[in-house]
Amino acid sequence: MLDHVRIVMVNTTHSGNIGAAARAMKNMGLSRLVLVDPIATIDEEAIQRSSRAEDILHNVVIVPTLEDAVADCSLIIGTSARSRHIPWPLMTPRQAAAKAREMIPAGNETALVFGRESRGLTNEELHLCTAHVHIPTESSFSSLNVAQAIQVLCYEMRLALAEPVLSGEDEEDGQWGVPWDHPLATHAELEGLFQHMESTLIDIGFLDPNTPKQLMPRMRRLFQRAAMDKTEVNILRGMLATIGKNRKPG
Amino acid sequence: MLDHVRIVMVNTTHSGNIGAAARAMKNMGLSRLVLVDPIATIDEEAIQRSSRAEDILHNVVIVPTLEDAVADCSLIIGTSARSRHIPWPLMTPRQAAAKAREMIPAGNETALVFGRESRGLTNEELHLCTAHVHIPTESSFSSLNVAQAIQVLCYEMRLALAEPVLSGEDEEDGQWGVPWDHPLATHAELEGLFQHMESTLIDIGFLDPNTPKQLMPRMRRLFQRAAMDKTEVNILRGMLATIGKNRKPG
Repeated sequence: MLDHVRIVMVNTTHSGNIGAAARAMKNMGLSRLVLVDPIATIDEEAIQRSSRAEDILHNVVIVPTLEDAVADCSLIIGTSARSRHIPWPLMTPRQAAAKAREMIPAGNETALVFGRESRGLTNEELHLCTAHVHIPTESSFSSLNVAQAIQVLCYEMRLALAEPVLSGEDEEDGQWGVPWDHPLATHAELEGLFQHMESTLIDIGFLDPNTPKQLMPRMRRLFQRAAMDKTEVNILRGMLATIGKNRKPG
Repeated sequence: MLDHVRIVMVNTTHSGNIGAAARAMKNMGLSRLVLVDPIATIDEEAIQRSSRAEDILHNVVIVPTLEDAVADCSLIIGTSARSRHIPWPLMTPRQAAAKAREMIPAGNETALVFGRESRGLTNEELHLCTAHVHIPTESSFSSLNVAQAIQVLCYEMRLALAEPVLSGEDEEDGQWGVPWDHPLATHAELEGLFQHMESTLIDIGFLDPNTPKQLMPRMRRLFQRAAMDKTEVNILRGMLATIGKNRKPG
């Protein structure tokens, strides 16, 4: 199941952290590393810190945006400090791993997203995530090195996904307690829905693009925490299309 | 309780690892670092990697032997690969933390002992320990960086000793893990939303009341499992009102 978990590092500045992340991943049995617009390159320092996890560095995928990194994922977990303007579903590392364990057997891809060394993820990036994860820390010294944060999350993922004896009983029926009738929507499908929704709400005059307030973030939060399936997305897009056709000529 | 847990590093070769260990400790709320006959010194690299956990580096205790480091401890947990010549009580990191939680309130000091970067602890050193701990790893790539191993153990210690809410039963912040910004909608408010939605969907011709299929049940399932708050319901009702006003005269 660990094959379905990718580590995504955004705008990483220090090549040593990329190498240390690769080593931590390989120790825990993960192999898929995606770098979003990295500042650092995979240099000697990265290779040295990877300590023979060079296969992960060789197979690294580099993409220009976070959206590209997570487009096919249904569970996108962004690392975050505790407080944010709009609260978003927040998990502990252990809960995040349990969630991945529920969702992966149904074919859902999972991404764990780690921000810049200096300032983490932006609010916009955090709003692309289905949930946030906060590693418990001392409040006065809360910033973990990014490779250490990756180590903790990969450790919890390993316990949940590859060490069933250590993590407790299995839950065959996934997050809703029953086998689901349709596969979950991917990130790209949800983004398509959000864009369609935004443009329709502007068209009908409900959303003023000049004073958008928190309308779209609230809609993102609502639909992402529901873990929508493909059929639900299709129904809502059908509704939006009908609403678009029905509107009075402006 | 974390004050009663010390980290002991034996014959550490790389000063960067000492700095990274100090940072990981401070993130997790530990402060007592003991170096047994270190090869590395606390140099610029250590200070840089500690990322302002310099107080731990300044207060480090340096001793000549492991016995000196653990003399006053009752729970001494040595990190180890899985197999040893003589079997020794072996714990997972989580079990080690639970054991510390049991023992510390009775006045017992705890030491977590980490070996050399190249070859860990000797058998003789392991035999000074009351128990061994093994961090679960991929068997083909099982050697964690020492600061990463310290991160994982300190994380489990923090959960067990300083985050009772996370390690067990009560979850004050409810199902999403954060205090929410608005109260949840009541059943009656949700019913009002569903009725409003149904009538609007009929009005715009999206829902045929003669062949409704599973449309409204799917919408109910979606919005109910999201556990909507009052603001979200109000936003959706505002949208529905706007959609109603916008529709072309039939």
